[in-house]
Amino acid sequence: MLIVQKYGGSSVATPERVRQVAARVVATKRQGHRVVVVVSAMGDTTDHLIELAHRVSPNPPDREMDMIMATGEQVSIALLAMAIRDLGEEAVSLTGGQVGILTDEVHTKARIQKVDTARLRAELAAGRIPVVAGFQGVTGDNEITTLGRGGSDTTAVALAAALRADLCEIYTDVDGVYTADPRLVPTARKLPVISHDEMLELACLGAVVLHPRAVELAKLYRIPLHVRCSFNENTGTMLKEETALEKSLVVTGVAHDLNVAKIGIFDVPDRPGMARHIFKALGDENINVDMIIQSSTRSGVADISFTVGRTDLARALAVVERVVAEIGARGYTHDDEVAKVSIVGAGMISKPGVAALMFEALAEEGVNIEMISTSEIKVSCVVRASEAERAVRALHRKFGLDRA
Amino acid sequence: MLIVQKYGGSSVATPERVRQVAARVVATKRQGHRVVVVVSAMGDTTDHLIELAHRVSPNPPDREMDMIMATGEQVSIALLAMAIRDLGEEAVSLTGGQVGILTDEVHTKARIQKVDTARLRAELAAGRIPVVAGFQGVTGDNEITTLGRGGSDTTAVALAAALRADLCEIYTDVDGVYTADPRLVPTARKLPVISHDEMLELACLGAVVLHPRAVELAKLYRIPLHVRCSFNENTGTMLKEETALEKSLVVTGVAHDLNVAKIGIFDVPDRPGMARHIFKALGDENINVDMIIQSSTRSGVADISFTVGRTDLARALAVVERVVAEIGARGYTHDDEVAKVSIVGAGMISKPGVAALMFEALAEEGVNIEMISTSEIKVSCVVRASEAERAVRALHRKFGLDRA
Repeated sequence: MLIVQKYGGSSVATPERVRQVAARVVATKRQGHRVVVVVSAMGDTTDHLIELAHRVSPNPPDREMDMIMATGEQVSIALLAMAIRDLGEEAVSLTGGQVGILTDEVHTKARIQKVDTARLRAELAAGRIPVVAGFQGVTGDNEITTLGRGGSDTTAVALAAALRADLCEIYTDVDGVYTADPRLVPTARKLPVISHDEMLELACLGAVVLHPRAVELAKLYRIPLHVRCSFNENTGTMLKEETALEKSLVVTGVAHDLNVAKIGIFDVPDRPGMARHIFKALGDENINVDMIIQSSTRSGVADISFTVGRTDLARALAVVERVVAEIGARGYTHDDEVAKVSIVGAGMISKPGVAALMFEALAEEGVNIEMISTSEIKVSCVVRASEAERAVRALHRKFGLDRA
Repeated sequence: MLIVQKYGGSSVATPERVRQVAARVVATKRQGHRVVVVVSAMGDTTDHLIELAHRVSPNPPDREMDMIMATGEQVSIALLAMAIRDLGEEAVSLTGGQVGILTDEVHTKARIQKVDTARLRAELAAGRIPVVAGFQGVTGDNEITTLGRGGSDTTAVALAAALRADLCEIYTDVDGVYTADPRLVPTARKLPVISHDEMLELACLGAVVLHPRAVELAKLYRIPLHVRCSFNENTGTMLKEETALEKSLVVTGVAHDLNVAKIGIFDVPDRPGMARHIFKALGDENINVDMIIQSSTRSGVADISFTVGRTDLARALAVVERVVAEIGARGYTHDDEVAKVSIVGAGMISKPGVAALMFEALAEEGVNIEMISTSEIKVSCVVRASEAERAVRALHRKFGLDRA
């Protein structure tokens, strides 16, 4: 088989761990597979580089941030290639530019446009193990870009797609995807298999085992993904296309997200284009808006509420302050003591009443619901942050996820 | 003027110093000059990266060492470009690969073969300040290389030559070139001007203000070099072609080098090819040999002594052990408690008796001479390491360098 293995920052956080990863890579090769490895920066390296940049400049240009951040992965690929060679296999480290991972020009959140496989195929044909820097690429002008959060996952899946790999293994510090966060719900179980869509919802809901962009890409190119732990030999969670069997499971998992803040705008004039005006202004500032609710209680005006990441709240409020004046709304409010709890399951589509069951579980627990949002395979509720843990446990129980 | 400025690791060791360097670069630009900046890695970064590599692997491949070491300069160029922009000038950081600094394929000590100036000229034409990573380049196959010790000096002079710059300024943590190490000789004086050849000898003798390869290149392309301190506005030392005037100064400076070890091989059979055999074996291992002395005291055999860098001693002895057996010599010895003291001066060529004066000074001081080596413009003696300081002071006095 041709296997792409991706190791996250915690898997290569120390020289000792780099050697452990090397042993695993070499073992895979000696089982007769061809292996391409993708590595993240060691431990907190990226955060340290960002901090260093901010110690020099209050507002560093994105291009220069990419220049400095890309060094993190360049260090770890060199170290891993060294460690693999010490174990007797040939390895060659490759930067995003050397591989030919071509991206667009949006620095710090570039998207991969094309992966040149010539160099990788040549190295594989020579019996070598290519060790590729995750998270980075180059533009057509040879400018260094980075792919934003979760970028190394995306690199791994993109390489797997370009090489038509048989399998993409994502090694992380958790064992796989669970029915809920095991730190919150002691009875949470590891899912042996999950569909791409379910994973996508979970990843978007704060249970970030795998970045949504990587999941999308895996779905698009039908790459079998195996999420597993680099510190043990346990089987993790396989991401697969949905099957009829899987659909019989109504709810696959319960997710929660504490990085949530709520903003409400009162008495927005009830004219066309108001919502567009608000959310375009936020989009222009690169602020992701999650749930949006518009309610109209009095004639001529409406209230609009929405959630943003708590870390984006200050920037969002600055935009809202301006927008409220521009559109002639009465005012706004915000609340950052909220959380989002969600149930996810591909089987929901064909089972009516799942949402009602969720609301029932929360009501029984005395948890008040402040906002609701649904997709075909998930239901999310905004609740008090202080009640999130209780809500997650109640939902895990209600949907029978405690039982194997 | 078009000025290439090179800042060493100590000049950019902290965020604060990076901002100070940025201020100097911007000031130069605002005096109406076009500026290209070359930067080394911050402070001890390169040493830390080497140490990290050795924590992972006992014997890391040179290619991977280059991969990891090149990140040091990539960090500092990004930081400096950020700091320059904060002061209101446009700057763009460029890796060796992005500039197009093409080298041969000798990893960890690559030599520059060609500098593509298209990108640099385009950035300059757009009014931007290119901030170039020193010490690194790429091969024709886009493999990352580093230039070895003093590589950033070489980068700066090579860019100055390729761009036909009017001036190359080398900023370091010392004020310029002195008649001797001021830490050893309190009466040492800063030289306002020095010839390339003299600088070359001094740099080869351990007084490393400027790397010999950079000096050679500057001489070859007639680049005016100004060695000065990044922490003050003092005029430093200008490197210039020799003039008749300068030649009147017999001895320009006294240098010393403690990174010296002596190896002796006894009873080498007196056949053609023996010296070649020994020094080819050492060269094959990339060990630089400095002074070589062959003496023949008994018929049919000769003793061969030579010096290597103390840091290369262990590797050199491994080679010698093997070579002694191969050529049938009687044995070998080594001594790492020696040092080299030298006098340098372009005026020596036309003044006989300078060497004798040196030996006299050492004899008066009771310093025993173990080896002697001379060139047209320098005389070097190997002495006990413990006597080196005394020897340097005696020579500085003897040749009248104490007097302005």
